[in-house]
Amino acid sequence: MKRWWFLALPIALLLPSTALAAGADPSLPFLFYLVFILLSAKLMGHIGVLLRQPSVLGELCAGILLGNLGLLGFQGFEGIAANPYVDILARIGVIVLLFEVGLESTIRDILNVGPSSFLVAVLGVAAPFVLGWLVGVWLLPEASPYAHAFLGATLCATSVGITARVLQDIGRSREKEARIILGAAVIDDVLGLVILASVSGVILAAEEGITPGIWPQAAITLKAGGFLAGSLLLGALFTPKIFATAARLRGPGVLVGVSLAFCFLLAFLAGEAGLAPIVGAFAAGLILEPIHFQSFGERNIHHLEEALRPLSEFLAPVFFVQMGAKVDLRVFASVDTLWLAFALTIAAIAGKQVCSLGIWGKGVNRWAVGFGMIPRGEVGLIFASIGATLVLGGERIIDATTYSAVIIMVLLTTLVTPPLLKWSLTSRTAPGKAD
Amino acid sequence: MKRWWFLALPIALLLPSTALAAGADPSLPFLFYLVFILLSAKLMGHIGVLLRQPSVLGELCAGILLGNLGLLGFQGFEGIAANPYVDILARIGVIVLLFEVGLESTIRDILNVGPSSFLVAVLGVAAPFVLGWLVGVWLLPEASPYAHAFLGATLCATSVGITARVLQDIGRSREKEARIILGAAVIDDVLGLVILASVSGVILAAEEGITPGIWPQAAITLKAGGFLAGSLLLGALFTPKIFATAARLRGPGVLVGVSLAFCFLLAFLAGEAGLAPIVGAFAAGLILEPIHFQSFGERNIHHLEEALRPLSEFLAPVFFVQMGAKVDLRVFASVDTLWLAFALTIAAIAGKQVCSLGIWGKGVNRWAVGFGMIPRGEVGLIFASIGATLVLGGERIIDATTYSAVIIMVLLTTLVTPPLLKWSLTSRTAPGKAD
Repeated sequence: MKRWWFLALPIALLLPSTALAAGADPSLPFLFYLVFILLSAKLMGHIGVLLRQPSVLGELCAGILLGNLGLLGFQGFEGIAANPYVDILARIGVIVLLFEVGLESTIRDILNVGPSSFLVAVLGVAAPFVLGWLVGVWLLPEASPYAHAFLGATLCATSVGITARVLQDIGRSREKEARIILGAAVIDDVLGLVILASVSGVILAAEEGITPGIWPQAAITLKAGGFLAGSLLLGALFTPKIFATAARLRGPGVLVGVSLAFCFLLAFLAGEAGLAPIVGAFAAGLILEPIHFQSFGERNIHHLEEALRPLSEFLAPVFFVQMGAKVDLRVFASVDTLWLAFALTIAAIAGKQVCSLGIWGKGVNRWAVGFGMIPRGEVGLIFASIGATLVLGGERIIDATTYSAVIIMVLLTTLVTPPLLKWSLTSRTAPGKAD
Repeated sequence: MKRWWFLALPIALLLPSTALAAGADPSLPFLFYLVFILLSAKLMGHIGVLLRQPSVLGELCAGILLGNLGLLGFQGFEGIAANPYVDILARIGVIVLLFEVGLESTIRDILNVGPSSFLVAVLGVAAPFVLGWLVGVWLLPEASPYAHAFLGATLCATSVGITARVLQDIGRSREKEARIILGAAVIDDVLGLVILASVSGVILAAEEGITPGIWPQAAITLKAGGFLAGSLLLGALFTPKIFATAARLRGPGVLVGVSLAFCFLLAFLAGEAGLAPIVGAFAAGLILEPIHFQSFGERNIHHLEEALRPLSEFLAPVFFVQMGAKVDLRVFASVDTLWLAFALTIAAIAGKQVCSLGIWGKGVNRWAVGFGMIPRGEVGLIFASIGATLVLGGERIIDATTYSAVIIMVLLTTLVTPPLLKWSLTSRTAPGKAD
């Protein structure tokens, strides 16, 4: 009997859709993907938890499975990686997640760990850049120095989505280590932007045979830095008044609606400033403090955090499953690629461990900070795909082999982070509480 | 000082986006629209509540304002009606809303009012069809009988989104009237589908000079009816086991994730059966009953309803604001159109009042049921746009004037419903508790 229920789906798929009353409804394939994303995320998340791993690791693996079912002959799931609606929902998902994580800290919390975050960010950009360059010189000797520099650049950025989710999964997102990592990731985003602009600028200038200018990079730095400082300052000054006004609004969902509008506004402005929208969402979360919600009475910030949880429980898995689904396992087929990927991964992990030297003060779990900075996520991929569009002397700066190696590096750094971070923060046998 | 904050937005818009690190991020314009959708929805919803109206009326008006700012010279908001990502989020929004409303009733509740719902649905399709046909004969005497029939068909369907939201806004979504309306709306969707298919089939057959067949319509009816009966039956049989299994899953957000997956699955299947996806979402809500969630312990169905609230508080306004934004106020400029629109609106409202004659038994507020069936929403528009694509003897079945009149009819039926329904259900001076 139970089989009937599961038969309903394939039968419905075989029936030709009349699609008359519904028009050609673009939401139908999207709904189909969402069903599989949510079910596989919760199922694999469960297996992750059983194996004592953060459930986000399960969600990533669910994505890798769904995205590569085509290799086993099951077609129809390609859209999970490619459907534009899944993509936009994933983007909203990671924005809501970072907003939620930002709510758990205040601007003061981040300023308190400011010196540490800044040093961690600078070291976490410099060390992987140098190591990535060296890997390029070693394994790609025939490539131009520009290609080596670009390889270094792809190792710089930290993708903070994974770390934020792991910290949330294991209930440690309010600790000092979490704040150092998150603060450093925000600064990293600015530094990464500057490095990418600089390296691209130098390559474009070399292709056109002119001297690279310093102004574009200065403008980008100013704009990104200006957004961060400006939004935190103006936000801190005016949010209390804005939310006191909002609290007087009647009707359903005012707190959730106005808070999300604030989050989306800062994410949009961050994107316009050239930063990742999640940086803006995190800043929005930092700015909102319990005092802003006093006028909401019972509907206070704890209610907001509680109200956002189901939103991120629905939307964040879309991001992580989609991230996994974008991995094409066929890149593992070439030995050349694997060697380069392996060397890049070691450089990426080792480079970020240098970070922990930048921590100011005592009593901080340095290993956890180093591990938390490891994942490159989609940021490394964006860098690599920009490199793939840059051409110098008729050759692409990042060729297909190098691009595949970067993908594998991103996958491995993303997959090792959840277990390492959980282990360093929760296991008694973990090192790092030393000083 | 306060002005600075508001200046930040236009300044950011003037800055040329480097968009380097973010790639060409498709989420940026989408985030921009979301900010305005959420803020205007909550602000106008507030004004609606102050005027003792359901806040959904304010959200619709917010959409009409935003969508027509272009007429006043403010450009940049056209995307709220046309952006495909806003559109998909709106579709998810109304799906989640109908799921939420469905959760508040059980299959048994709906079966109890089944005879009433069925008669209400049949009368609510037949009466507007005849009245719409007569309006066509009267005001468009030169048009073909097929055009008159199609005009009747555009008046048949009930768009239940508005009514569901009003019932939720005024806290009456668990009452008998609500169940009759919602049950009738589901049956209406099947009947509307059959009528649309029949009228389209007759016109297509006439154009090709052949006798219309009965089989396509029979197949559509069978498929749509089969989906409804099948999903309710199979769902009721197997959901307890599925959710008992799901309750054993560990990891965050299992209840929300699995429930939404179930909702999206039925919405998808409904869409594949040719029905509106919201019919599937409502059926999913009906199927889930508290007993299915016992194994979740504390995480029971009340937790689910509570968890879904912020989701619909975020997503449902996107639907209603977008619905408003799609209204182009320029259609009001032609007197011919206005006459036809006025006559259609009267026919639409009067036709649905006949519904209340179908109510079985006593103690039901007949006016509330009649009012609740009024809104045509996007379903009428879908009918009209299909009519605009049908050509008979070189002429379009639905011409530009008629199409504009249908849009106005949809707008007016949508706008009159919230105040009428609230009045009939909450005012002491309202009629209808008579028998």
